[in-house]
Amino acid sequence: MAGNSFGDVFRITTFGESHGEAIGVIIDGCPPNITIDETFIQSELDKRRPGQSKITTQRKESDTAKILSGVFEGKSTGTPLAMVIPNEDQRSKDYSHIADKYRPSHADYTYQIKYGIRDYRGGGRSSARETAARVAAGAVAKSFLSPFGIRIFAHVSGVGKIEAPNLATHDVDELTALRESNIVRCADPATANEMITFIEAIRKAGDTVGGRISVVIQNVPVGLGEPVFDKLHADLAKAMMSINAVHGFEYGSGFAGSEMQGSEHNDAFVNPEGDAKNLKTLTNFSGGIQGGISNGMDITFRVAFKPVATLMRAQQTINEAGETTEITGKGRHDPCVVPRAIVIVEAMAALVIADHLLKNQLYDQTRTK
Amino acid sequence: MAGNSFGDVFRITTFGESHGEAIGVIIDGCPPNITIDETFIQSELDKRRPGQSKITTQRKESDTAKILSGVFEGKSTGTPLAMVIPNEDQRSKDYSHIADKYRPSHADYTYQIKYGIRDYRGGGRSSARETAARVAAGAVAKSFLSPFGIRIFAHVSGVGKIEAPNLATHDVDELTALRESNIVRCADPATANEMITFIEAIRKAGDTVGGRISVVIQNVPVGLGEPVFDKLHADLAKAMMSINAVHGFEYGSGFAGSEMQGSEHNDAFVNPEGDAKNLKTLTNFSGGIQGGISNGMDITFRVAFKPVATLMRAQQTINEAGETTEITGKGRHDPCVVPRAIVIVEAMAALVIADHLLKNQLYDQTRTK
Amino acid sequence: MAGNSFGDVFRITTFGESHGEAIGVIIDGCPPNITIDETFIQSELDKRRPGQSKITTQRKESDTAKILSGVFEGKSTGTPLAMVIPNEDQRSKDYSHIADKYRPSHADYTYQIKYGIRDYRGGGRSSARETAARVAAGAVAKSFLSPFGIRIFAHVSGVGKIEAPNLATHDVDELTALRESNIVRCADPATANEMITFIEAIRKAGDTVGGRISVVIQNVPVGLGEPVFDKLHADLAKAMMSINAVHGFEYGSGFAGSEMQGSEHNDAFVNPEGDAKNLKTLTNFSGGIQGGISNGMDITFRVAFKPVATLMRAQQTINEAGETTEITGKGRHDPCVVPRAIVIVEAMAALVIADHLLKNQLYDQTRTK
Amino acid sequence: MAGNSFGDVFRITTFGESHGEAIGVIIDGCPPNITIDETFIQSELDKRRPGQSKITTQRKESDTAKILSGVFEGKSTGTPLAMVIPNEDQRSKDYSHIADKYRPSHADYTYQIKYGIRDYRGGGRSSARETAARVAAGAVAKSFLSPFGIRIFAHVSGVGKIEAPNLATHDVDELTALRESNIVRCADPATANEMITFIEAIRKAGDTVGGRISVVIQNVPVGLGEPVFDKLHADLAKAMMSINAVHGFEYGSGFAGSEMQGSEHNDAFVNPEGDAKNLKTLTNFSGGIQGGISNGMDITFRVAFKPVATLMRAQQTINEAGETTEITGKGRHDPCVVPRAIVIVEAMAALVIADHLLKNQLYDQTRTK
Repeated sequence: MAGNSFGDVFRITTFGESHGEAIGVIIDGCPPNITIDETFIQSELDKRRPGQSKITTQRKESDTAKILSGVFEGKSTGTPLAMVIPNEDQRSKDYSHIADKYRPSHADYTYQIKYGIRDYRGGGRSSARETAARVAAGAVAKSFLSPFGIRIFAHVSGVGKIEAPNLATHDVDELTALRESNIVRCADPATANEMITFIEAIRKAGDTVGGRISVVIQNVPVGLGEPVFDKLHADLAKAMMSINAVHGFEYGSGFAGSEMQGSEHNDAFVNPEGDAKNLKTLTNFSGGIQGGISNGMDITFRVAFKPVATLMRAQQTINEAGETTEITGKGRHDPCVVPRAIVIVEAMAALVIADHLLKNQLYDQTRTK
Repeated sequence: MAGNSFGDVFRITTFGESHGEAIGVIIDGCPPNITIDETFIQSELDKRRPGQSKITTQRKESDTAKILSGVFEGKSTGTPLAMVIPNEDQRSKDYSHIADKYRPSHADYTYQIKYGIRDYRGGGRSSARETAARVAAGAVAKSFLSPFGIRIFAHVSGVGKIEAPNLATHDVDELTALRESNIVRCADPATANEMITFIEAIRKAGDTVGGRISVVIQNVPVGLGEPVFDKLHADLAKAMMSINAVHGFEYGSGFAGSEMQGSEHNDAFVNPEGDAKNLKTLTNFSGGIQGGISNGMDITFRVAFKPVATLMRAQQTINEAGETTEITGKGRHDPCVVPRAIVIVEAMAALVIADHLLKNQLYDQTRTK
Repeated sequence: MAGNSFGDVFRITTFGESHGEAIGVIIDGCPPNITIDETFIQSELDKRRPGQSKITTQRKESDTAKILSGVFEGKSTGTPLAMVIPNEDQRSKDYSHIADKYRPSHADYTYQIKYGIRDYRGGGRSSARETAARVAAGAVAKSFLSPFGIRIFAHVSGVGKIEAPNLATHDVDELTALRESNIVRCADPATANEMITFIEAIRKAGDTVGGRISVVIQNVPVGLGEPVFDKLHADLAKAMMSINAVHGFEYGSGFAGSEMQGSEHNDAFVNPEGDAKNLKTLTNFSGGIQGGISNGMDITFRVAFKPVATLMRAQQTINEAGETTEITGKGRHDPCVVPRAIVIVEAMAALVIADHLLKNQLYDQTRTK
Repeated sequence: MAGNSFGDVFRITTFGESHGEAIGVIIDGCPPNITIDETFIQSELDKRRPGQSKITTQRKESDTAKILSGVFEGKSTGTPLAMVIPNEDQRSKDYSHIADKYRPSHADYTYQIKYGIRDYRGGGRSSARETAARVAAGAVAKSFLSPFGIRIFAHVSGVGKIEAPNLATHDVDELTALRESNIVRCADPATANEMITFIEAIRKAGDTVGGRISVVIQNVPVGLGEPVFDKLHADLAKAMMSINAVHGFEYGSGFAGSEMQGSEHNDAFVNPEGDAKNLKTLTNFSGGIQGGISNGMDITFRVAFKPVATLMRAQQTINEAGETTEITGKGRHDPCVVPRAIVIVEAMAALVIADHLLKNQLYDQTRTK
């Protein structure tokens, strides 16, 4: 109801404000006997951690996740897996100047009216800091998916008007190496340099810019997704749209596909392996999903992020008393969120796939094999 | 779990296959004492009904909804409101020729693998016929929202590469009259003519084409939406992506916004009415939603539909035995779904707003007014 | 939220009022490829149908369930299975005399205050007629459980102060024959005669009487139940307490067990089959459930029903205006509900077991076998 | 699904094992602006804490709850309220001797088979230690209910065959003083002494004994409860049956009521205050609930606890290898749980009432007042 949980079977509930004691997550429904590797969880958190490079916020947080339950001798037990990430560098004073001011295009005003109370420090619950808990949970979801051979890869495909070319390869290891070779996390190094230069200029101007993240999920078995309201792409859409600053989602052919004709858009079935239960399609405008159910091809989608709302320059606004006032971003903020957001996008995708993979097991016993 | 329900408080569960006895819906959580007008429900169903015009399928269905429960002397009682829509013109023989063939870009293959069984007639449960039940439920949701002054307007803003200009007015009655003045349901008559000519040509060629629907929701109070996973736009995204053939969703500035800079994108707060609890913004790139919560401005979003997969021309495909075969659409199909889809989009939007309006009441007693 | 659904995976939603068009149920989550036998569904409904004998209400209802969806060529498809039971013998005039009177120990007053509106005819939604939809759904659940060898048996073990001895056998077929040999549905014929004589006397006096139903569930595998809030017995308790007129639930040793000492109450483990994964216990005070999870022994519980509230004699009460008035039951009512309730109890038990059997499949892949 | 959450609107999710890092709870849906008093939360935890008296376990735990989120300047913010209770006195060595042995009437065997892995230390997740998290959450629920005047009182009404007389007064303050005047927490001091003497004898014998807790909830408004599956008493039943060791639940007249006749059992309506919306009943066999909805009278129910399964004497059992072995309780255990369980029962009752009070607000706007 209050919407701090996501997923039905592999279900997470997050808690915590940007400047409270801690943030964290409970995973309820993590299957037992999954190997839980804290080093891997940390490496995922490190990809989202602030202060990584000159194009990200300088806020210092080690973002160390501590496991409180659900793991025994390195394996999940099937009981709730709780993780806590303490808030360290809180600098609440940074925010005193905005205690009663509504930051433009932030959640201050809507929270105040909805709840009649809010923790204004760093945006409180509306801070993207909440997504660190999602990343920790997503790392566990990835550990569950890994033995199935399921791979999720996201990279920055667009910053402002700069757009990367299509991926040069389908090898996730190569793609990851290319992506991690640059601080903007674009798998095309040439475009990456362009993006970095642009973001630096934007940052110097005290401004911010939006961007786009493209995702491919490989080796998803046929059958994931429930066909009416819980279509696989509908749940992916909700997962992505629930990430701070996201304004758009498309899968497969997306918006461009709506300009096409059926005769070009239809994906023809073929049977390369002579296995009637393992067909392929010549094209993949369907983005790996047909009728809301995965068809065994790569699942592809794209996510659009608006520019960060906090600017390092003066803006006019209104305060809680309704009076006109002025505001200037202090604190420490990102000029562009997408480089840090790729791991959040991957985490939410992993959570959706894990949830649907488990749901699909419910058909195993009765399905005609 | 099986995903045939939508909503938490104002919750619908649909049932029925394209060529079974009937389709229908249960609304659980419709508040009591709402006036239920069967004539209005029927008028909504008529907007989506097949056989309306030369650019829609000629399948004949009166699509009459019968209320079985939850209404007493013209008012909702707060108990489950069940509606059934019998299937009349079933023509199952039309589908015998595809009983064991997987139609390209349809759900035949994924259903067969997921369930090991399927009602192949007209796509069974995967048929867009299921959306008639959503429209009937959406009509009840609109009746609940109407006394709050909430208005929902959708129209066809794009067909293929043809794009309509921005809306000329914000008066929903005027807009509706403009939209209903043409069979493609675009609020810009000039563009409408262009679209109709194009769709006719497409149909004659036995082909199909995709399109886009743009939506505005007016007079939504501040506070709707739960701030983390159940953001108002995340639930709208899931609702829209759950409609057959939808491949993309964006709200407010959408994908275009991801190319902008914060200094142009931020919506400046103003207080025209001198009411600190009723602020406005000069621009509306936020699409009426900030931090996942409605801010009182118009809620705007756009939905992309892929081209209809059933073509009136021969296509090569694979059958259940894994053999290569050929298929040609018979049955009766739309060359372009968007003209009939606008009422489905409005219905799903009404269901999301009704659900969140009720959820938001949960804060009334404790909220500082 | 509004509480007309039950179950998570094998989920039912019921609708309908006693004197509306129809009542019915949607099963969402019924696995595909289950054989659906309408004759069996009807035979279950017949056990609950009014007018069966001299000790039940004479209201005439054929209670015929019509399947609207989710079944194709005799098998479930995995899509929503909807069933409708039309209301035939409505005789609404029977109820005009109580339109504005609150019947003692009925739901009239609480419904009126909660909703501000109610269908007073025959209790509307609060009528036990709603349970016919549960019985139809329970029949489908039994069909799903049957191949697993799971058997559910309920019988009338008490009427008023009359109590039946413990079951003479554990053979469900024998027990069923014994139970069906008499109209009160007690598996002990001698006690049955005593009960019938007593109920007839009660009926002649225009009075009613309460009773108790005892249940045994056989061949449930080890592992059903989620260990904290969704303990198997907690869900059975909710299922039983949700049946009209039920005032008490106990499983295994129940209330009597709370008077015992641990040394007598503990169930000693034994390993008769030399299979460490298939242990038994010498006694079964645990009622087949330990830590909320089935342990492979018989699951046993008992349900207490209060006396029917509608009496065929004058009672003083209050009307909607708050004035003192008098009321006398007309309509057609049962002097004792337990003979018709056994199939409702079995249906709810089948729904709980089916739901947990499916949930438990979620551990199959990861569980160390 | 995995069942570690309870409630729909006021929803809790607990985590933690008996001998892990910590246990805790997230409350999602706690309304904003509720005063959160950590001293009160602690006083509730102290009532359940081990080591309180000679008749409870001597395990030492300060059970201090730390609030991590959801509270700002002493008030709830409407965001998730997370609390953590560290495990201090873990003494895991106490349990090494039972690592591979299945304790009779414990959850060891069923957990092992269900999950294929378990934290055997102190019962891990199946330990009643989990209920400390419920008590902390229940304290917050009580703080929410308090301004409505809703009072919940539970006391030990039975130990073994010893039964307390009916409550001497309806004044909750007086009753609480009486209850807290003795270590067994029975509101009748004379019976309390009898119980204490009996429990001491049981403990000296290395044995344990069961008991019963009776509850009254006062000042609940009319209208709480959803009428079909989520009847108020059905949710109370599930809540109580989900508490470790509970084997039975009855409300109002309960099992005894099933022996009565309608003419004695019906509760006659009266209108003492001349307010048609605030009726009373002369008797209260309905236990304050009619048709699953509160009717404004005292809500009354009774809960049965089996004897503690861990005995301080040798018992024969089976180990994971399937071999016969012997086990003797070491650790530190209660001879009788009811004295510490009253606050758990009150907490679960508070959670159910809070959840339904919020749900009932959903009817406020549309209800005819």
